[in-house]
Amino acid sequence: MAETMKAAVLQRAHVMTMEQRTRPAPGPGEALVRVRAVGICGSDVHYYTHGRIGAFVVESPLVLGHEMAGTIEELGPGVTTRAVGQRVAVEPGVPDRVCEFCRAGRYNLCPNVRFMATPPVDGAFTEYVVMPADFVFPLPDDVTLEEGAMIEPLSVGVYAIHRSGLRAGQDVVVLGAGPIGLVTLQVARAAGAGSITVVDLDAHRLEVAMTMGASAAIDASREDAGRRIAELTGGRGADVVFEAAGSPKTAALAVRAARRGGRVTMIGLPPEDNFPYPLVEAMAKEVDIVTVFRYANVYPAAIALVAAGRVDVKSLITHRFPLEQAERALQLSDRREDGVVKALVEVS
Amino acid sequence: MAETMKAAVLQRAHVMTMEQRTRPAPGPGEALVRVRAVGICGSDVHYYTHGRIGAFVVESPLVLGHEMAGTIEELGPGVTTRAVGQRVAVEPGVPDRVCEFCRAGRYNLCPNVRFMATPPVDGAFTEYVVMPADFVFPLPDDVTLEEGAMIEPLSVGVYAIHRSGLRAGQDVVVLGAGPIGLVTLQVARAAGAGSITVVDLDAHRLEVAMTMGASAAIDASREDAGRRIAELTGGRGADVVFEAAGSPKTAALAVRAARRGGRVTMIGLPPEDNFPYPLVEAMAKEVDIVTVFRYANVYPAAIALVAAGRVDVKSLITHRFPLEQAERALQLSDRREDGVVKALVEVS
Amino acid sequence: MAETMKAAVLQRAHVMTMEQRTRPAPGPGEALVRVRAVGICGSDVHYYTHGRIGAFVVESPLVLGHEMAGTIEELGPGVTTRAVGQRVAVEPGVPDRVCEFCRAGRYNLCPNVRFMATPPVDGAFTEYVVMPADFVFPLPDDVTLEEGAMIEPLSVGVYAIHRSGLRAGQDVVVLGAGPIGLVTLQVARAAGAGSITVVDLDAHRLEVAMTMGASAAIDASREDAGRRIAELTGGRGADVVFEAAGSPKTAALAVRAARRGGRVTMIGLPPEDNFPYPLVEAMAKEVDIVTVFRYANVYPAAIALVAAGRVDVKSLITHRFPLEQAERALQLSDRREDGVVKALVEVS
Amino acid sequence: MAETMKAAVLQRAHVMTMEQRTRPAPGPGEALVRVRAVGICGSDVHYYTHGRIGAFVVESPLVLGHEMAGTIEELGPGVTTRAVGQRVAVEPGVPDRVCEFCRAGRYNLCPNVRFMATPPVDGAFTEYVVMPADFVFPLPDDVTLEEGAMIEPLSVGVYAIHRSGLRAGQDVVVLGAGPIGLVTLQVARAAGAGSITVVDLDAHRLEVAMTMGASAAIDASREDAGRRIAELTGGRGADVVFEAAGSPKTAALAVRAARRGGRVTMIGLPPEDNFPYPLVEAMAKEVDIVTVFRYANVYPAAIALVAAGRVDVKSLITHRFPLEQAERALQLSDRREDGVVKALVEVS
Repeated sequence: MAETMKAAVLQRAHVMTMEQRTRPAPGPGEALVRVRAVGICGSDVHYYTHGRIGAFVVESPLVLGHEMAGTIEELGPGVTTRAVGQRVAVEPGVPDRVCEFCRAGRYNLCPNVRFMATPPVDGAFTEYVVMPADFVFPLPDDVTLEEGAMIEPLSVGVYAIHRSGLRAGQDVVVLGAGPIGLVTLQVARAAGAGSITVVDLDAHRLEVAMTMGASAAIDASREDAGRRIAELTGGRGADVVFEAAGSPKTAALAVRAARRGGRVTMIGLPPEDNFPYPLVEAMAKEVDIVTVFRYANVYPAAIALVAAGRVDVKSLITHRFPLEQAERALQLSDRREDGVVKALVEVS
Repeated sequence: MAETMKAAVLQRAHVMTMEQRTRPAPGPGEALVRVRAVGICGSDVHYYTHGRIGAFVVESPLVLGHEMAGTIEELGPGVTTRAVGQRVAVEPGVPDRVCEFCRAGRYNLCPNVRFMATPPVDGAFTEYVVMPADFVFPLPDDVTLEEGAMIEPLSVGVYAIHRSGLRAGQDVVVLGAGPIGLVTLQVARAAGAGSITVVDLDAHRLEVAMTMGASAAIDASREDAGRRIAELTGGRGADVVFEAAGSPKTAALAVRAARRGGRVTMIGLPPEDNFPYPLVEAMAKEVDIVTVFRYANVYPAAIALVAAGRVDVKSLITHRFPLEQAERALQLSDRREDGVVKALVEVS
Repeated sequence: MAETMKAAVLQRAHVMTMEQRTRPAPGPGEALVRVRAVGICGSDVHYYTHGRIGAFVVESPLVLGHEMAGTIEELGPGVTTRAVGQRVAVEPGVPDRVCEFCRAGRYNLCPNVRFMATPPVDGAFTEYVVMPADFVFPLPDDVTLEEGAMIEPLSVGVYAIHRSGLRAGQDVVVLGAGPIGLVTLQVARAAGAGSITVVDLDAHRLEVAMTMGASAAIDASREDAGRRIAELTGGRGADVVFEAAGSPKTAALAVRAARRGGRVTMIGLPPEDNFPYPLVEAMAKEVDIVTVFRYANVYPAAIALVAAGRVDVKSLITHRFPLEQAERALQLSDRREDGVVKALVEVS
Repeated sequence: MAETMKAAVLQRAHVMTMEQRTRPAPGPGEALVRVRAVGICGSDVHYYTHGRIGAFVVESPLVLGHEMAGTIEELGPGVTTRAVGQRVAVEPGVPDRVCEFCRAGRYNLCPNVRFMATPPVDGAFTEYVVMPADFVFPLPDDVTLEEGAMIEPLSVGVYAIHRSGLRAGQDVVVLGAGPIGLVTLQVARAAGAGSITVVDLDAHRLEVAMTMGASAAIDASREDAGRRIAELTGGRGADVVFEAAGSPKTAALAVRAARRGGRVTMIGLPPEDNFPYPLVEAMAKEVDIVTVFRYANVYPAAIALVAAGRVDVKSLITHRFPLEQAERALQLSDRREDGVVKALVEVS
């Protein structure tokens, strides 16, 4: 008789319930992972509050959560590269492996990707998930399961730095000091940025940024960030600007902040498109604009950076909730209460 | 006594006169070049019709013309790499050689560049010019002086292809079939593009594009170019899109025309900035946007492509005028009369 | 009852027999391809003459042939991107899709790749093969099945040009004018090389190279190739050198032929390792050495180049044999008789 | 009357004398720098002990020393970007600024470069030197003049990391723990290397490497370094290997230590060329070999890394000598006595 497991299920916007579901079994090449820690992402919050993100609509009950770590409980036939009992971080988007994008190593662009907690694919606010073994990454002994859950957001930062072409000794600006901005800041620092200026509207988050290695913090609610960046760089601008705030205003600021021949890396998705954008300014400075859609091929690097102590994801974790209180974790994150940076759901 | 020379001088918008000026002498490291052929560029036309381009204002009399070839008449002290009598193409923008951009090989971004026919630097509608010897490129025997004058606009296309990262066998879209669009098309073809679709509003220019190797031509005045590109690429989009039309509408079309993970290369400068731009669409497809400001380090490649018969710049030349009729050449180019693609001023 | 098919089977060095084998059936995601044309590769010849290539030993009967085109006879469950009756080129190396190399798009480095005609994996000297559908590439109408068989060797050239970083207008040297050298020459030309100098010891092959677009041919049996390349480039050396001859001597020549800051691309595998190599010369010129192992992600580009008429693989095909005479095709290729460049086995 | 200055002059191998020389004056665009600290490089030692390095022969008296920092004493006409009194690091190789390599930003390859302390160009073991102002880099307040002298060797490491394409989170091996190996290790660490394994024959230097952030040290005099690297990387090999030992044996080891698809970066110049090299092994793994000749465009990055505390060059400085004892500094460095890593000559 099939065993069951608990799951926190989003029925529709603002309605979550605990359910018993059938525990899945791993097929060939797959691993059954016992869920231990799951981070709350902005997309989880948005599904909870709106029941949709753009074209992705919660039309039937959905398990949220995709920033996940756990332990391997069972392996399907043919898996030789993983072992039962291993502590693992789970990469949540599984591509089709046969399209031109997968073949070329850009599997984040696979049109058939199945991404956890994106309708209709269930996520990790539950006790067990089944994943292909190669999307399950063993953690070294000195990396905790909580840190393992942070590998997913950290991967966005690692991928952004990889794509940006940042070179050791260059000057960086990071726009936005939310979880993605903070991991980007940390990876930029780990990758040898000479100076890192962080811009946000939230004084508390700017303080956090300073403790994580920023060289300077600009509160854009109190001063002209573009002018201040120019001052800090002697009028030259930054070599690489990371846009992690996701607004039309900061998208424009990113161009302004870049030096001639510099590079803007767009991470944060503005809520609507076709806004006024200073493309001519970018062209006159020969600034290139690099875009980032999720990530690919960076879990090993992200884990290595945590293991080597080069980034500190632990400090981002401000709150912890049991599975039964996943909804509270979402609500707290939505309201940005209590100095929350990253809330975790812990499954015992 | 100093010798004199003729020059066609723009006094102010719409007013050109012929003048006698003192013939310059080459200093150390310089070459005196006798002007033979000078192409009319859109910027020349704009200075003629408006007396300015953005912040660059014709405040005192200005000699226009910067697409130039000629013969070396005299060499200044210390020049050993060039010889009197050589037929040469002239690269018109001389940078300071000491700023960080020059040192790094991106001299097109030099803030102190002196660019011919950009106020207050005189251009080539005259009999002689003095240039640093290393900005004067000898032409092989089988490249004519008229072709030599075309090296300048061709360089924009070569540089755009270099920056775009185009790989042999990839599908290309070129937006705009003016002189820059047409050289970009030709260099894309020379660089191994698999298919090349050209979009313009002018049926005649699209015909020219087809004779120069385009695989397909789309008349955007008669059909939805975005939809047609999608059809032609089986819904996939182009690997690399070159925007050479310089309008907000085509800037947006460039993003739409690119495949997931593709690349947009911006060449044409839209007349105004901060227009609505589909940046979110670019991000959702992880399309990168590469910008092109003039060119650097491509004259030898451009000359080699002409010499090897890989591009045909001769066919772009539709009209020729003597120096005394430079104004007529500008007017004809302005009105796009008589099927003009590129008009040359020839100095006898 | 299972149907049978004919196969030319290598029993051991120098011994081939015709056999009846069971015709395979396509599984999920697979295509059954009726074989039409198969090129003879140097590796086929080497297995035939030596029974091994390095560590790969023919220990049980082996079907040779991996340069193959045919028609789709049947599709396995779940294949929606291909259709029965399509004419296709087959990419012969199927990787595991889960290792770090596959995930990163470098599937040619997959340690678990199954490559046709490499022991113990059978090849294409037979009537039918089964392949994953995504390794079966439809040919446009204007590409013949014979050309389809040439996509495999052409892919080596395309991949080499991609890896080399060759830019339009640069000067190229190709060492070796065998099939791989000739396709490399052709792709270099298609990719916009300014000049292409080819070096070989065989006067006939050099003539073929000249008909395929080489700018100059050097017969290294009659003159000092290094000195001649220096003369042809005005002492500068080539921007990119492709080594397709596979000998210690030409590996060294490649370094000598490259300009300061140039790039050597190693394609041909010398028969033994640890030979004297001018690495210090490379370092003193800051010449980078890029290596090429098979290819990845280039079949579409190779097909596009043939379809657009940018490369001419037909002219490489000098001989054709029916399946029953596959052994003769191998023997002829081994002895380089009768001006053979590429011999095809045609399966009716 | 011209002022004089002291200089330590190499007359011929093993013979240095103190001389009075005329103090130079800065010309247009130049700066007169008062020398404060000069590091001893292996090339200085080699000129001292052998009177030559390859084709560069000390045929007339030569001032050694090219790792230099000082203060600006006077500026020539036209210099507006520097100020008298500034503390500066001096980049010692001045190129011609007009050759194709300079124009393209690869001025380290300039055939006409004038490099300090390379015959016949005098170096910095003296009181004053004149340099073009753009080769004189102001130091931030928190970077000492001793650190300023270390910018030159540090630049080799920065340039090597830039050229290597190292990405944050990748595994690195550094062969050689002399000054160049140690700065490479430090920059690799600053650039986000996941793990860094250092190999040397000198137990003391390996200890230093461990204090500077190496993850593991291998004493190749006591164990098989190739096997040990394989063990440490789980059989996979390193993503990037830096060869900074400059021997045929370590050049071969670098290939062995690299993973499939990895990259070898050659920094150390072996004393002779054409030694047996495992090029076929590199090809079979598709390992690319990147070479490093001096450096270009990295002084600002190197200074930024020191200023930000990302690298520690101070700890490399083990000995200090006054100008009058420059010869002793060379002798000590030659004999590697007294645990010397880097000896400085300090000019008061």
